[in-house]
Amino acid sequence: MAKKDKKSWEKLFRVTNDAEFKYAKVDPAATPGLSGREEAAPILAANTARMNELQERLYAEGAQALLIVLQALDTGGKDGTIRAIFGPLNPQGVQVTSFKVPTALELAHDYLWRVHQQVPPKGMIGIFNRSHYEDVLVAKVHHLVDEKAVRKRYAQINAFEEHLQENGVTILKFHLCISRDEQRERLQQRLDEPEKHWKFNRGDLAERALWDDYVEAYQAMLRNCSPSSAPWHVIPADKKWYRNAVISQIVADTMEKMEPKFPPAEEGLDKIVIPE
Amino acid sequence: MAKKDKKSWEKLFRVTNDAEFKYAKVDPAATPGLSGREEAAPILAANTARMNELQERLYAEGAQALLIVLQALDTGGKDGTIRAIFGPLNPQGVQVTSFKVPTALELAHDYLWRVHQQVPPKGMIGIFNRSHYEDVLVAKVHHLVDEKAVRKRYAQINAFEEHLQENGVTILKFHLCISRDEQRERLQQRLDEPEKHWKFNRGDLAERALWDDYVEAYQAMLRNCSPSSAPWHVIPADKKWYRNAVISQIVADTMEKMEPKFPPAEEGLDKIVIPE
Repeated sequence: MAKKDKKSWEKLFRVTNDAEFKYAKVDPAATPGLSGREEAAPILAANTARMNELQERLYAEGAQALLIVLQALDTGGKDGTIRAIFGPLNPQGVQVTSFKVPTALELAHDYLWRVHQQVPPKGMIGIFNRSHYEDVLVAKVHHLVDEKAVRKRYAQINAFEEHLQENGVTILKFHLCISRDEQRERLQQRLDEPEKHWKFNRGDLAERALWDDYVEAYQAMLRNCSPSSAPWHVIPADKKWYRNAVISQIVADTMEKMEPKFPPAEEGLDKIVIPE
Repeated sequence: MAKKDKKSWEKLFRVTNDAEFKYAKVDPAATPGLSGREEAAPILAANTARMNELQERLYAEGAQALLIVLQALDTGGKDGTIRAIFGPLNPQGVQVTSFKVPTALELAHDYLWRVHQQVPPKGMIGIFNRSHYEDVLVAKVHHLVDEKAVRKRYAQINAFEEHLQENGVTILKFHLCISRDEQRERLQQRLDEPEKHWKFNRGDLAERALWDDYVEAYQAMLRNCSPSSAPWHVIPADKKWYRNAVISQIVADTMEKMEPKFPPAEEGLDKIVIPE
């Protein structure tokens, strides 16, 4: 793929055929379209400029919203992605929600209740750091609900997202795919730097031991929750520079397709002179 | 004031004596401590670096929050301040709330109900673009409540903020003070640039005509809601570069005083080797 073909990343990484997607076939270290870090930096910079301009229009227009869903295994790079790609935007138009272990109040409701509350309002970009997909990932791996319930949830989630899209919320879903080796390195790094210790907890090791179960849960989820209106994108994420270039490209292209417009000027504004 | 005295900005602009503060004495174009734009840029950059580092600790610590309240007359620069000072921080640790005209649901509750919901949780920096202070500003100017109720609200607001501070929320309040001339220029600019038209509405003109009433309401509010634990800072804001240097300085210094600390490492983390 030549550099000028970077617009095809969206297609390349989109999960299209929901019955045939094979997780094992994804190469987390691949960097199709880019030969190295030097090529990635100007792409991210150009996309940042585009996103900034489009974000102002989206905000001014106040008619549609963009929801970004980020899912990954531990150390997959969700935090870094948010920082690198959405950090440079106007914080007033960006709303990040990190979904943690549900509270007692949240558990007293259906699993989409807390999610619906955090859907970005018109004019905004909302970012989900983890999401309702945990309810078919961690919930499946740890058998918090049975398989039949998991399958029902796929359908419920698809219906929920369709509802949102029909009501002006564009949805982009990214799974940051890292290799088992890369995770080992990143976890070890957190242990080796005392200032990173707070990011580590022993539970991460137990989850790592369930790697294959997670891969299976991801594969099933990706296959079942990728309708053409809101498909997943599986991004090779071992190389952070590649991940950032690709995601920024897909986000900026999507915002362009949303065609946000400044609202029409009120009649006669050009004749007003502000008094002393 | 010499450049090295920039730490005294906090004291210089703090409203200390609540009975004697005179709004008319503030010079919105003043730039004490700085001779020009060139001197301001490195100060903002240095403060951005400090805030970034302190923000990570605040987030990791997860024990206390910082609430920034921004109030200004139209075009006072709230949006620009948010962008310039909080834009470079990690969006995951920043939560911006723009308070608009209250909804029917909000009006069905006391005026602090919607505000309390938006107080930043532990670990976060919350920014209020407008705030509960509108309920003693616009509410006073437009006689939405009577004078007796306004005075009661000063006391209620002070009690509310004291409650927050006693529960781990540090509060910094900035009034961005611009001159009447500067507002005229900024409003005119919005009319002269078609892409800025969406920021203008005719209501702004009606509010501008009430300038003196707003000044009176601000003066009364600043005098009555500046206890030493949560005083207002009145920032000369005609010069954006000055405003940004000063506010970033006060925010960074305050975060330093909060002394956020990385949580203590779990015992034995340094002995863990991540398995293959």
